[in-house]
Amino acid sequence: MKNLIFFILIITSVNSFAQNDSTFIRKIYDEALENGQSYENLRSLCKDVGARITGSAEAEMAVKWGEKLLNSYGFDKVYLQEIKAPHWERGTKEAAWIINEKGETFKLDILALGGSVSTNGLIEGEVLEVENLDALKKLTEEQVKGKIVYLSQAFDQKHINTFRAYGGCYPIRGKGTSEAGKLNAKAVVIRSLATPEDDFPHTGTMRYEEGINKIPGAAISTKNAVLLSAWLKQGKVTLKMEMDCETFPDVTSYNVIAEMNGKDDKIITWGGHLDSWDVGEGAHDDGAGIVHSIEALRILKKLRYQPNHKLRCVLFMNEENGNMGGKSYAKIASENKEKHICAIESDRGGFLPIGFDVNGTEEQITMVNKQKDLLADFELFKFKKGFGGVDIGPLKEYYPDMIQLGMAINSQIYFNYHHSNNDVFERVNKRELELGAAAMAAMIYLMDKTLK
Amino acid sequence: MKNLIFFILIITSVNSFAQNDSTFIRKIYDEALENGQSYENLRSLCKDVGARITGSAEAEMAVKWGEKLLNSYGFDKVYLQEIKAPHWERGTKEAAWIINEKGETFKLDILALGGSVSTNGLIEGEVLEVENLDALKKLTEEQVKGKIVYLSQAFDQKHINTFRAYGGCYPIRGKGTSEAGKLNAKAVVIRSLATPEDDFPHTGTMRYEEGINKIPGAAISTKNAVLLSAWLKQGKVTLKMEMDCETFPDVTSYNVIAEMNGKDDKIITWGGHLDSWDVGEGAHDDGAGIVHSIEALRILKKLRYQPNHKLRCVLFMNEENGNMGGKSYAKIASENKEKHICAIESDRGGFLPIGFDVNGTEEQITMVNKQKDLLADFELFKFKKGFGGVDIGPLKEYYPDMIQLGMAINSQIYFNYHHSNNDVFERVNKRELELGAAAMAAMIYLMDKTLK
Repeated sequence: MKNLIFFILIITSVNSFAQNDSTFIRKIYDEALENGQSYENLRSLCKDVGARITGSAEAEMAVKWGEKLLNSYGFDKVYLQEIKAPHWERGTKEAAWIINEKGETFKLDILALGGSVSTNGLIEGEVLEVENLDALKKLTEEQVKGKIVYLSQAFDQKHINTFRAYGGCYPIRGKGTSEAGKLNAKAVVIRSLATPEDDFPHTGTMRYEEGINKIPGAAISTKNAVLLSAWLKQGKVTLKMEMDCETFPDVTSYNVIAEMNGKDDKIITWGGHLDSWDVGEGAHDDGAGIVHSIEALRILKKLRYQPNHKLRCVLFMNEENGNMGGKSYAKIASENKEKHICAIESDRGGFLPIGFDVNGTEEQITMVNKQKDLLADFELFKFKKGFGGVDIGPLKEYYPDMIQLGMAINSQIYFNYHHSNNDVFERVNKRELELGAAAMAAMIYLMDKTLK
Repeated sequence: MKNLIFFILIITSVNSFAQNDSTFIRKIYDEALENGQSYENLRSLCKDVGARITGSAEAEMAVKWGEKLLNSYGFDKVYLQEIKAPHWERGTKEAAWIINEKGETFKLDILALGGSVSTNGLIEGEVLEVENLDALKKLTEEQVKGKIVYLSQAFDQKHINTFRAYGGCYPIRGKGTSEAGKLNAKAVVIRSLATPEDDFPHTGTMRYEEGINKIPGAAISTKNAVLLSAWLKQGKVTLKMEMDCETFPDVTSYNVIAEMNGKDDKIITWGGHLDSWDVGEGAHDDGAGIVHSIEALRILKKLRYQPNHKLRCVLFMNEENGNMGGKSYAKIASENKEKHICAIESDRGGFLPIGFDVNGTEEQITMVNKQKDLLADFELFKFKKGFGGVDIGPLKEYYPDMIQLGMAINSQIYFNYHHSNNDVFERVNKRELELGAAAMAAMIYLMDKTLK
């Protein structure tokens, strides 16, 4: 009788794949929420390693931290993939003041933009407020020369997804120094790319165009930006600043990789980035993505999942200022004639996951949406065309037919912390982080089952 | 030519209601995100009024605060609705210690449960750990008499929605003292109904069954609970405690109401609750719901919306310990033969809104789901059968055919703060709060347009 029931149960379960998927994903969530290790792993990465910009001692420690942790889980293969990457240091001097016509002085909260040149001592110039990059491009050298250009563009709060507001302001950070340099400005300060009005300056990468006059660039806090704009309404403002940041020769560093063997040699890659900016602790950006990625593989192993394809978790180096980890990974994959069919990235923080953005064909988006009802039980709802991620992006050049997914995460608070001293472990909620790891594992599982 | 284009535009827009709805909801969100007043209103309620348990001076101040704010917006009608409600005070003495067999002593973080009797001085008893209410019901008087029952049930972390974990533990808080009282225990302490392990005790309502032995009840922090359970594994533990909380005669208080006239006299009601527990600032519970509700009406007025039905925003009193605001409102509505067709509540915090739970028929749920594509643009995804809310609940008794909606909000962090000293303004994010107000206004608008 007992055997008969067992037999019936097997038959029933074989006939209901969807239910099987639901049961398996339920197990993934149970493991993440009851025995999850992502929160403790994130604490360790933030507190035992800390901020870890490419080329720093901390980045080297992070590589060892990742390798050791992945080895501790006994995956089929753990290895380092050597890359060359840029090396920029903030230095020890970083200060700025504004002085108005009455001689009143205010010390600003500033952070050099990543990649900026030094000021070579204390510099000084009249502040010229410019509302955005387009407005800067319309100015003449006569208007700009010798001045310190202040790009005051604020986030457009009307965007529901704050990444759109960030995207709108991105040009002032990425290209402001180049455009102002062409007009022989002395330096650039920008309003931080951040959602709230507060006292934290937010750094981030910038790039000098080839062959132009390189001038220093820094971000000031949004509150300081509001103040500076108010002062400028009253009259002339002078800005003094000093920064001794410096770019050094490229360094050798590593992507850290773990694998679970599958029944074939097609590859599903996922990951986040191991480097961070050199301020705060890189907790949301992208410590969260790192522990999501590691935890996803840990859970699949713990549940004794037998994958169809090779599952590969990658802790990418150098996403923040060069993306040499992602670029190198893709190039090596292609050179080795690897068969990449899918890549998934988590690089939008450790907040509540709400779905996945799909970078793929209409058919691929439809395929993902077939999982919608199943994933709604786990409060994952959003599966629309969108961006996969910076680290996995370069794979698309070599594998145009692959599907890429970016974990969609509640974006409302992300740019309060992003690239600032406020991006620390304490800003991350345990359950939200655990749900991110489970969502990642669930999507890896579904893609492994679905993709041929 | 200009007129022709204008004419074509009108024709086009008349023929595309869905697009009109989308445009109008977009305006709601723009107003909330660019010119929103919910965050400043919440700051004022939390800081200028503070914790506001029914019967307190603060609750009286909150009524005046609400009335004044609603009047400042110039709505068609603002008035108070008198109710009778319970009055319980925590008193000034609240302390507890545990002592083990070695004489080691540890002071606990405790909060009396709302409605508890006093201990009448310092009491002392051996601690008896019981895992949940069902286990307590199985014990005999001999096992329990003279002891202090410690109900140690923890949240089941496997639930995706933390309200389910809360619901699972609710009986130990609501009924623990009654069941232990029947067995002549001296007092009850419970593990706080909270998600994380931390040092905040969480209060909440409890009820004595009629005619039973009333014994005191208190909550200890989850960290203290873990410690107490560990001590009990080592041997006998004595607990000393003192609380001088007291129940006073019922008080007169008020629901605060604002209305916008419609084309007919059918009513759409929405609201949150103005009272809170007497700890923290009632920021998420339910200051957020209060400012969501006020802001929704403000935005609709600002956008010069002409409603089909009467729109009524209600700041309910006494949800926390008696629900006399909700019960009285429903009774008076029925007595006045008002025509209630829809009620919406926000009482799940100021976190990210994700949709609405629908308490209604299959047809009503389908009707709400027809708005799904429209609302997905605003990242509202979840429209499933569920609970409307405690305040609006009693209306269903008189109006069984009405639809009730409860705003579904990211629940992951809510029970970190709920009913504790940690539920303060600083725990609320501006944009998430604003999105809640916009979601509320959008749903009121859609119901007003859809319901006949």
